[in-house]
Amino acid sequence: MNDFIFHNPDKVYFGKNQMEHLPEELLKFGKKVLLVYGGGSIKKNGLYDTVTKLLKANDIEIFELSGVEPNPRHTTANRGAKICKKENIDVILAVGGGSTIDCSKGVAAAALTETGDVWPLVSNRVWVEKALPIVAILTNAATGSEMDSWAVISNMDTNEKIGLGGGALVPRVAFENPELSFSLPTYQTACGAFDIFNHVLDNYYLAGDATFDMILEFQEAVMRAVVKWAPVAMKEPENYEARANLMWASSMALNNILDAGTVHGCACHAMEHELSAYYDITHGHGLAIVTPRWLQYILDEKTAPAIYRLGVKVFGISEEFAVMEGAKKAIEAVSNFCFNTLGLKANLSNLGINDEHFKNMAEHACFGGVISGPKNLTAADVEEIYKMCL
Amino acid sequence: MNDFIFHNPDKVYFGKNQMEHLPEELLKFGKKVLLVYGGGSIKKNGLYDTVTKLLKANDIEIFELSGVEPNPRHTTANRGAKICKKENIDVILAVGGGSTIDCSKGVAAAALTETGDVWPLVSNRVWVEKALPIVAILTNAATGSEMDSWAVISNMDTNEKIGLGGGALVPRVAFENPELSFSLPTYQTACGAFDIFNHVLDNYYLAGDATFDMILEFQEAVMRAVVKWAPVAMKEPENYEARANLMWASSMALNNILDAGTVHGCACHAMEHELSAYYDITHGHGLAIVTPRWLQYILDEKTAPAIYRLGVKVFGISEEFAVMEGAKKAIEAVSNFCFNTLGLKANLSNLGINDEHFKNMAEHACFGGVISGPKNLTAADVEEIYKMCL
Repeated sequence: MNDFIFHNPDKVYFGKNQMEHLPEELLKFGKKVLLVYGGGSIKKNGLYDTVTKLLKANDIEIFELSGVEPNPRHTTANRGAKICKKENIDVILAVGGGSTIDCSKGVAAAALTETGDVWPLVSNRVWVEKALPIVAILTNAATGSEMDSWAVISNMDTNEKIGLGGGALVPRVAFENPELSFSLPTYQTACGAFDIFNHVLDNYYLAGDATFDMILEFQEAVMRAVVKWAPVAMKEPENYEARANLMWASSMALNNILDAGTVHGCACHAMEHELSAYYDITHGHGLAIVTPRWLQYILDEKTAPAIYRLGVKVFGISEEFAVMEGAKKAIEAVSNFCFNTLGLKANLSNLGINDEHFKNMAEHACFGGVISGPKNLTAADVEEIYKMCL
Repeated sequence: MNDFIFHNPDKVYFGKNQMEHLPEELLKFGKKVLLVYGGGSIKKNGLYDTVTKLLKANDIEIFELSGVEPNPRHTTANRGAKICKKENIDVILAVGGGSTIDCSKGVAAAALTETGDVWPLVSNRVWVEKALPIVAILTNAATGSEMDSWAVISNMDTNEKIGLGGGALVPRVAFENPELSFSLPTYQTACGAFDIFNHVLDNYYLAGDATFDMILEFQEAVMRAVVKWAPVAMKEPENYEARANLMWASSMALNNILDAGTVHGCACHAMEHELSAYYDITHGHGLAIVTPRWLQYILDEKTAPAIYRLGVKVFGISEEFAVMEGAKKAIEAVSNFCFNTLGLKANLSNLGINDEHFKNMAEHACFGGVISGPKNLTAADVEEIYKMCL
């Protein structure tokens, strides 16, 4: 069992009737707010009006950064940082899904640098200890950004999509109202759900490393929740219980509770980031394509017991198989969840991706070394996994 | 499912090699520290020397409040508050188990009142929003005080033992080194373990109220951890894994993760506090005596399915019984855990307690109304349960 530090000061207001607390929370930081959002869906569904009215009624001054991309760009974050510097913004209010919150984290970090450019922080893997405070209103259960210390920022000039981390990037306050995700399209619901699932699986007990039993069981409980409630939310988009379970699963997956005593892994995430960096595909879909192939690739006598356990505990597979056979059934169950239950296309070729850049992508994913995990992956391993996804 | 707020800013350093971070964390609040501890076991086992040396090497000025009782008294907290006021203490360092941390919370709250008396806060159930910062070094897995917003303070003049709560009472930092609990006697280990178990059970799904499946499953995972590891720690006091599991279970039981979407219940705790208030018995032992009788008392068609589920999930009882029979088997399993596995004496009469004060205790436990829970308990109900414990 490893020593660890647990620290997550984020204050989460969860539920239907919490928005009234927004002004009091923002005013703890000041009166000048940068409102960050994406493509305008919050204008269609009325959330933009609700929020701006509430802020204006409390004499809060609003500046705006809109048009955040699904894979948020460093140039957009820099645009936000420029506004923060010019207007002396006190607090950033992110209204949207993971992309919007991630972009806001980029803005928050860049705004306190001299140049106002987020990219040097990202590319040099700087751990951000100083940033403007962020308050988030979550509309999509997926990335866990509402309660974690990470952002993922893309540089489309260099085909790079890289994580930016730091204690200062944990939102100070998050509002999670499951009703705000009612209007999410089926495809986005499916992609978000698999993102949550993979956050846990990437960190699961696959190499038999010691952690607390209870933490392992927490991980399984969160994955079971996704497997149970994602198809319900897809069929009944306004099912509150389904949306609530997915939303809280999103936060639980990355708020560090599931990390206690473990080594945090992110093999599939590292491989997928290259796919969205090169092809701008939806992150959760890329993960769904990569994950079952990764499990197949790492399957051996050492990893088989834990993969089989995943099948038993999360997908209800019989405990009566021989270990290796059971592990194969578990991988089938993951595939079935991705490509049948969630209805996501199974191959990169379905998304118009061929092997042209695999070599470069694999090298970049390994960042000059290996991706550590239940089985360390070299660039050659990663290239092989990409080929399995074609 | 209920709306809820999750907020726990406590920073926990967990593991063997974390103590070096103590000075930097204290110095965030200032250089004048009130060191609070109990009967002197920390002097015997060397912890007192380790801590004071570390502090002095960092020019931190130490004041002391020692002799905190197992059920900490308001008079002791007031003694600490007096030192804080006189010496302008910046931060309180609690070194010990739940009693020491609870007393420190009393000190921290009283120090910022005009009178320096904690009792009016306690008896008026004031929610404490202003207190000196507390840093805790935990030596005993039990109360969860290292990561929660509650203290329990006793007034021996009036036979009252009452919870004092408040956002300001959550320790800012907690150090949890399982090795520090190696020297804990078997009886204290057993009592602490049952305190953890009951924190979860008191809040379990017994009335079928909606919560997240995953939270219910987290609760079961924490109770399973206690059932598995408590007997190991009792037999092998220096088993790191056993001590670590109990310690993290202690924190998880009350750090609000297990509360999401539930109504927090505390029926057994409310009934037990009267026992320790009147007879100064060890809290965890009192809980072990009360809990199986409470389960018996509330058992009916409404509560049986959840009680049976507890038996299946936590104690591995067969799923093939009829519901009511299964629930009875579950209660037997809880009894067996308390009185055989943990070796705690089963009756109040074993502790020299008779029915003399039951009526008054029951009325006080209900605080002029009922104890709410899976089945609301009136004073008459509570008196009946006490009698079952004789």
